[in-house]
Amino acid sequence: MTIPTISWSNGCVKLIDQTLLPTKFKILYCRDLKTLWHAIKRLSVRGAPAIGVAAGFGVLLGAKEFKGNNTLQFRRHIKNICQYLGTSRPTAVNLFNVLHDMQQVLDEYPEDSVAALKIKLEKKAVAIYELDRRTCRQMGAFGSTLIKDGDNCLTVCNAGALATVDYGTALGVFYAAKSAKKKFKVFACETRPLLQGARLTSWELLNRGIDTTLICDNMAATLMKQKRIDAIFTGADRIALNGDAANKIGTYSLAVLAKHHNIPFYIVAPLSTFDKKTKTGGGIPIEERGRDEVVFWGNRQTAPAKVKVYNPAFDVTDNSLISAIITEVGIIKRPYTTKIKKLLR
Amino acid sequence: MTIPTISWSNGCVKLIDQTLLPTKFKILYCRDLKTLWHAIKRLSVRGAPAIGVAAGFGVLLGAKEFKGNNTLQFRRHIKNICQYLGTSRPTAVNLFNVLHDMQQVLDEYPEDSVAALKIKLEKKAVAIYELDRRTCRQMGAFGSTLIKDGDNCLTVCNAGALATVDYGTALGVFYAAKSAKKKFKVFACETRPLLQGARLTSWELLNRGIDTTLICDNMAATLMKQKRIDAIFTGADRIALNGDAANKIGTYSLAVLAKHHNIPFYIVAPLSTFDKKTKTGGGIPIEERGRDEVVFWGNRQTAPAKVKVYNPAFDVTDNSLISAIITEVGIIKRPYTTKIKKLLR
Repeated sequence: MTIPTISWSNGCVKLIDQTLLPTKFKILYCRDLKTLWHAIKRLSVRGAPAIGVAAGFGVLLGAKEFKGNNTLQFRRHIKNICQYLGTSRPTAVNLFNVLHDMQQVLDEYPEDSVAALKIKLEKKAVAIYELDRRTCRQMGAFGSTLIKDGDNCLTVCNAGALATVDYGTALGVFYAAKSAKKKFKVFACETRPLLQGARLTSWELLNRGIDTTLICDNMAATLMKQKRIDAIFTGADRIALNGDAANKIGTYSLAVLAKHHNIPFYIVAPLSTFDKKTKTGGGIPIEERGRDEVVFWGNRQTAPAKVKVYNPAFDVTDNSLISAIITEVGIIKRPYTTKIKKLLR
Repeated sequence: MTIPTISWSNGCVKLIDQTLLPTKFKILYCRDLKTLWHAIKRLSVRGAPAIGVAAGFGVLLGAKEFKGNNTLQFRRHIKNICQYLGTSRPTAVNLFNVLHDMQQVLDEYPEDSVAALKIKLEKKAVAIYELDRRTCRQMGAFGSTLIKDGDNCLTVCNAGALATVDYGTALGVFYAAKSAKKKFKVFACETRPLLQGARLTSWELLNRGIDTTLICDNMAATLMKQKRIDAIFTGADRIALNGDAANKIGTYSLAVLAKHHNIPFYIVAPLSTFDKKTKTGGGIPIEERGRDEVVFWGNRQTAPAKVKVYNPAFDVTDNSLISAIITEVGIIKRPYTTKIKKLLR
């Protein structure tokens, strides 16, 4: 797979439309801010790092729409764009970290013209994109040391090339292990309600030649009981200072099951996923999504119209259940708080 | 809901076709053995007790097809029918228990004519049907004592009226609690891959006026963490002599999660679900079903065609994770082996 999930050229953000996979491969061209906002909102692009990179380019789309030379107005315009982009998804902190970094460019160059600022913003957005490519490979290199020949690994949702620019966090570990000629298999949880595991993870793992078996989320425990899982690798959407990690709904469940079955449970996430402002997982806002994701599949109604639905998109895994967090600067183990504070300094 | 899930009249088995719920309510008329076998195989009728009752009537459909008065041939014919019906689903022991009971009728009356045996078989099948109605209500009465006002209960799959003749095992507990004017809410796990929780359980709970919230299976843990679940009630498809219980895939996962969160986990099942011949859960055969249940929804393909799939229909919950088993003769607690042996004597 040589086509990146996100790219930027000639004032256009190109995205693989992930709502259509695995049966259709289509590129979505976002030439204006609103199209990109909707692409994030409706999950055409998703995955915490990818959302961050896309938002950086989104700021450029917004900047492009600004006509004139009034720098004060331009600065206010960029601030508004960042606020708007921040309303697309609430849980992934990478989004807010990138928007913060983009605004900081303006603060760093208080005297620059609009034209000069536009160039510097573009440079920053491209740097964020390049950083994602680099950090994913670094995480992969560290994480792959945890995989032994013959291992069966489990993952949930999609923390892969499709959740980043082109490599992945948790799935990057598998790609690095594959490059290192390790022999292992992966079980992918389908990840209800939107089936990112079925649609996206199994698609990209197969594309890269990795032995992949798809299961429903409720089958993971029975595999663990059968001693058919040796390690679990997942991504994260936001990690608090104490190591509590928000990730796709179902991750917490896997972590509890892993503890019961004495299986290591690893989070793979770049430092941009850590939230300096949040001390514990209790402070992470959890996005609740609409009922139709649970009640319908395509056009088919699968539950009574009147039933109530609870549909949180994420859950929080306590640091006590996490064996290690794999970052681009190394593998972090307990006690998390002091180590994370040091890294984020 | 006054229409029973299964009924027998004029040589015909009437079934609610559960593959069409909740959007279509249709009665399936089985006038011959093969139609009934397929109805069990394709899950038009499902749920361990319902499968048992349906199989009893299935023997009658097969008996009806026998022409002539040769009792020896008739006895062989019934034996073949029972073997054939036993190939429809492997895990639920109620099926085999009922087929055993039907064959025993022949042994009890070695001198009877074909016509007389047909009547006695019909009497037996109807008795099995009536027994189901009675035992479900008895289990409900015992189980409802475990529900307190204000409780939030969790269930998986469908262990309700649709899994029995007309009342249910786990859901029967809720119906009895409702009759006793208790105030409680139920969370229903949707139960992938076939969504019996979404399609069947939420449909029948709403029909009976019970406050019901649907969740995806991977959301149960986060509800438990939020202290929003006070008790879990599930059915069972086969219980070994030591109390290990096979039930719909995902049940074991809930039991482990319940233990971690210190929540009582109850199995509700009639004595016909206990398997005298199986000492532990390891001896229970687990049905594996086809890949399309996981890879497709309706006509839409949701995973790559080449991906491997693991699709066990059931899992086994260790007796150590089961707080109590609710039967028609009372609530059984640890140590299970001695108590179960006594009950099955």
